[in-house]
Formats: sequence, C-alpha cells, structure tokens
Amino acid sequence: MKLGDIGEFGFIDRIAQGCLVGEPSHVVRGIGDDAAVVRCPHGLLLITTDLLIERVHFLRPAISPTQLGTKALAVNLSDIAAMGGTPCDAFVSIAIPAEVPVEELDGIYDGMKALARRTGVNILGGDTTRSSQDLCLNLVVTGFVPEGEALYRSGARVGDRIVVTGTLGDSAGGLRILLERLELPHEVAAPLLAAHLEPELYLEEARLFATSGWAHAAIDLSDGLASDLGHVCRASGVGAVVDVAALPLSAELGELCRAAGGDPLALALGGGEDYRLLVAVAPEGVEPLTRSVAAATGRRLYEIGEVVPGSGIRLRHPDGRLEPLTLSGFDHFAHR
Amino acid sequence: MKLGDIGEFGFIDRIAQGCLVGEPSHVVRGIGDDAAVVRCPHGLLLITTDLLIERVHFLRPAISPTQLGTKALAVNLSDIAAMGGTPCDAFVSIAIPAEVPVEELDGIYDGMKALARRTGVNILGGDTTRSSQDLCLNLVVTGFVPEGEALYRSGARVGDRIVVTGTLGDSAGGLRILLERLELPHEVAAPLLAAHLEPELYLEEARLFATSGWAHAAIDLSDGLASDLGHVCRASGVGAVVDVAALPLSAELGELCRAAGGDPLALALGGGEDYRLLVAVAPEGVEPLTRSVAAATGRRLYEIGEVVPGSGIRLRHPDGRLEPLTLSGFDHFAHR
Repeated sequence: MKLGDIGEFGFIDRIAQGCLVGEPSHVVRGIGDDAAVVRCPHGLLLITTDLLIERVHFLRPAISPTQLGTKALAVNLSDIAAMGGTPCDAFVSIAIPAEVPVEELDGIYDGMKALARRTGVNILGGDTTRSSQDLCLNLVVTGFVPEGEALYRSGARVGDRIVVTGTLGDSAGGLRILLERLELPHEVAAPLLAAHLEPELYLEEARLFATSGWAHAAIDLSDGLASDLGHVCRASGVGAVVDVAALPLSAELGELCRAAGGDPLALALGGGEDYRLLVAVAPEGVEPLTRSVAAATGRRLYEIGEVVPGSGIRLRHPDGRLEPLTLSGFDHFAHR
Repeated sequence: MKLGDIGEFGFIDRIAQGCLVGEPSHVVRGIGDDAAVVRCPHGLLLITTDLLIERVHFLRPAISPTQLGTKALAVNLSDIAAMGGTPCDAFVSIAIPAEVPVEELDGIYDGMKALARRTGVNILGGDTTRSSQDLCLNLVVTGFVPEGEALYRSGARVGDRIVVTGTLGDSAGGLRILLERLELPHEVAAPLLAAHLEPELYLEEARLFATSGWAHAAIDLSDGLASDLGHVCRASGVGAVVDVAALPLSAELGELCRAAGGDPLALALGGGEDYRLLVAVAPEGVEPLTRSVAAATGRRLYEIGEVVPGSGIRLRHPDGRLEPLTLSGFDHFAHR
C-alpha cells in the first residue's frame, strides 16, 4: 500500500492507534491538535531530541522497520536515562519518500510503540511529511526528574570512579558486520548486530544512580567512550584515567577482530552507539550500587577508571604506563 | 568555510551563542548535556514540532538562510499561538549536506535567534548531523498556558462566529511567484513573497483570545482554510458556513491572478501556509475582541462565517446560494 492511497490524515489516524500507553493522568491532549498539552509534574522537565537520516544513521536494507523504530526511540530514552530521569512522552516527526510502502511505516511505528509500552511512554504528537529522497525520523522525548536528582555531565569530582553499564565496542562491531558484509558464525554475529540494532536501555539503573546520592555525573555513550568521557571531563573541569585492562570487551568483539582484523580496544574507545551509561560514582558508592543494580535488573556495572585532577583522558596500561587518549570518538562533520 | 573545518562540536559551540534570549529563570540546563532541563511552570505545557525538508517545504535557492531560520521557528510559534499559549523554549535539529557552507548555517541560526529574541524564546538544545542530500530542519517549541485558557480545535459551538487574523491565500500566491518564476511589479510581488517567506505571528492576539472567555476553538491556517476549518468542524462535531464575500483577499493576490491566471478564491480556500489564526468566537465577543486586538497590535480581525449544526463546510455566495466546500487543502501524501 502506498501513502498516496490513504493520504496524510489517513496515515495519521493509522499511526495514532496505540500511542497512549504510558501514564495517562498528565495528558490533556495528544495527537490531533496544534500542540500536545500536558499537565506539568512538580519538578524538572527533561527534553531531548535526535534526528536520524537514512544513509547517515541507518541503511534501510540493513535494519528492519521494527528495529529502526525501536532504536529511534531507544536512543532518546537513553538520553533521559543519562540525566537520571524517567521518560514521559514522545513526539515523532517523519519525512517519507514516496516509494516507501505503508507496511514498512507500520513496522517502524510498531517498533516504537512496543518499546513505548514497555517503558510507559506516551506518543503524543509529531509531524508527517513527504521527503524527496531520504527517510528522516526526528524524535523528541520528555522526561521528569525530581529537583536535586538530575545527573549532569558537569558533576564529576576528583576521586570518583568511572563505571559503565555494559561492554564497549559491540555496536561498532555490529556496524562493521553490516558495512563490510562480514560472514561470521551466527553466535558471534548475532550479539554484535543486536548491540548495534537493538541497544539495551538502562532506565532502572538511571534511577538507582540518581537516587543514590553517590552518582555525581552521567552521560550516555553515543559517540564513543573517548568522546563522551571527554565531554564529562571538560564539563566537570577534571581529567580521567581509564584502565585498559578493566575495559569490558565482549568475547564476540574479540572474535570479530580475530576473523576480520582490527583492534577491539580501538572499537571500545572510539566506536559509537553503545548506549551504555557512563557514570562518575563516589568510591564508596561503587560496591553498593553494583549490588543494587544486580538485585534490580540482574545486570552488572564495570569500573573502568577514575576521575583525576587536570584535564584530558589518559589510558593506564597493565604495566602502569600512562598514555594520552587521542581518539576523538565520532564527529558527524569531521573530514575522513 | 566548510563544516568539516570546524567539526560538530565547533559548530555546536558556534550556534550556542545567543540562544538564551528569553525568560532565564526556568532554565536549569540548555545546550550541552544529554537533555535540556527546565523547571516546570504551574499550568499546562504545550509541545509542538515541525519537520522541514529541502525540496519539499523549501527550495534553498528561493529562500534566504535568514528567512528559512525565521520561518522554521515561526511555524512552530504559530502552533503555540493556536493553543492560546505563550512560547517558552525551542529545540533545533538540523541535518546538513556536506556542501552547505557554514555561513549559510549561520544565516539560518541568525534568523531563528532574531525571532527568538523578539518573542522571548530560549533555544535550549537540538541535534546536529550530516545529511546525504537534503537539508532537514526539525524544530520543537514548548509553550505554556494557564489551566482553563487553552484553546482546542474541539471547542467550537453552534452560533460561534469564525474569525481569521489576516488575509488568505497570499502565501500561496507568493509560492506561485517562486515556482512559476512570475515577473510581477515589485509592489505586487513583495507582499505576497513576504507572506510566504516571512509569515506574520499572532502571539499577542492568541493571548487576548485565550483570556477573553469568548474564544471557544482555534487553529492556525497551515494547510489551507478548507482543510484546517474542516479539522475544527470534525473535532467539534459541527459544521460551518463561510461567506464568500467576507473572505479577506488582498489586492495583490487579485493582481497576481489577473496577470498570471488563477482564482484568488481557490488560493484563499485551498492555499497553505497563511499562518493566520482561525478562531471560533461567541457572537457577542467579536466586536470587543476586534477592538482589543486593534488597540493592542493595530491589526484587525475578519469575520468570515459561522458555526452551524451538522458537519462539513458550505460556502455562502453573495446571492445566498450554499455550495459544499470540497477542496481539501493540502495533503502531504495525496496523489497529484
């Protein structure tokens, strides 16, 4: 079915189904007026937005519509988690080339709605329009955090431990499999592809960090550890030392690099889209937070280094040697 | 200068200047963290978003960068006005093809920031990324309206008068000049082009409507009178009669059609992007609102018809004849 068969307003009616799946009490108006209307919670409102462009952020043949919709929402939820907040509402703008079948769009919205349902997020509005060539998807997500619990990039303190919520570099490994069309055993390829196409979320962990009092700063790893930890260091006016031996690397990432070349460490430090949380935690908080995260979600935290005076990031090798980290992560406009 | 010369973070630093131009007291964090953080006002929060795609919504050679930035913000402010609200904060996502010079981007942001300054709106975040081909611009604007003052599409009552805040069809006339490369005298072309490229805003009028108690429903005319009044009728469960003789048509629109063919009435009914407010007003409110608008802004209201029982829109011709309005306004996906 083509969009022209159902028209813009038919399409909006179609996607509006199943959008109110979160807390309904604060929603005064969702889809269908000039703006969404919500009753403000008492506290701080978080607003984040991400723009995804075909052939820049995704290749339509390489990601299923459901995965695309899920990921588009997930990366915004990850930003809310990185602030220590709880997501509330989402707004979905989409620009659609004429040849995209309605069934593919249904898949995108199905993915978004399924994740929205799992996370209690309402879809309250957006915009729908044509595109001449590339599919574009802009999501906005609002969230809420009580005053005093928000986690900023700027709060890291000297002595804090740096923890991450999962292995690093797997998403970059999955992207390599797609771009280089690597043929790998299923048990190696599947987790790496999943890390890239269906990133995990850490919403419960975020609230545990935010309410603990031990977490001083947080960011989600979207551009790569080197780049994102660099943001935290600059915003906080501190430096960081990362223990190479402590970086959590999956066995699958190692197997990918053995089979196809490349350095797992480089992917872990510079690869984007891991969407793990990176948190600066007071030393005495690492152990109790690790326990409470394990109890709540069954997942673990990895301590990868510490916050130090000065500026910049240094790698500490197993022999104690310190080396400045010069990888810059992912820069959307850098010359390549 | 190319974006590659300054990089993504250099570009973000560049555009972040001059973004905090509105009420600062509610802003906890603007550009530079995973999400913006604002303190919620007491009342209702409005959220609207619009996605603008090159070659669909604008032609880069036909609109100056400053006009593009201004218009991208204006159309969202217009949505906030249509809810009776006051705009607060804006979020700007942009996807940029590699060949676009930084100076052109500066122009887009200069236009946005100048309008943001005039309307007291902070720019608090967004997203910046590459695009393979088309420039894409997604704006999100939040607004605020006290409980009980929000104007919905659904509030129109039988007997209400339908008023609009300006002439109709001029923007469609300006678009014709651009698309058909019409050569017209400057005094004819200039106001029509301005209507298309630099739409007027009705933020003060919106608050007068919202606080008056006489305004029962509102919408901004983005898709054309026929389409947008149709939304109000469907949402309110009413019909409407529009007096053909009362439709405000500019002299310039008439001259365009005399010189280049076409029917001003068709442009007024079906042409998009006028961005006037259309409001359903209690009969006794039309005169006092007209006076208070004139006193506050020097502009006038046009009464163009009334809300009637039933459904659908009918045109009333000067001889009293009623004719169903079948033009559907602008549908982004319709077969053409």
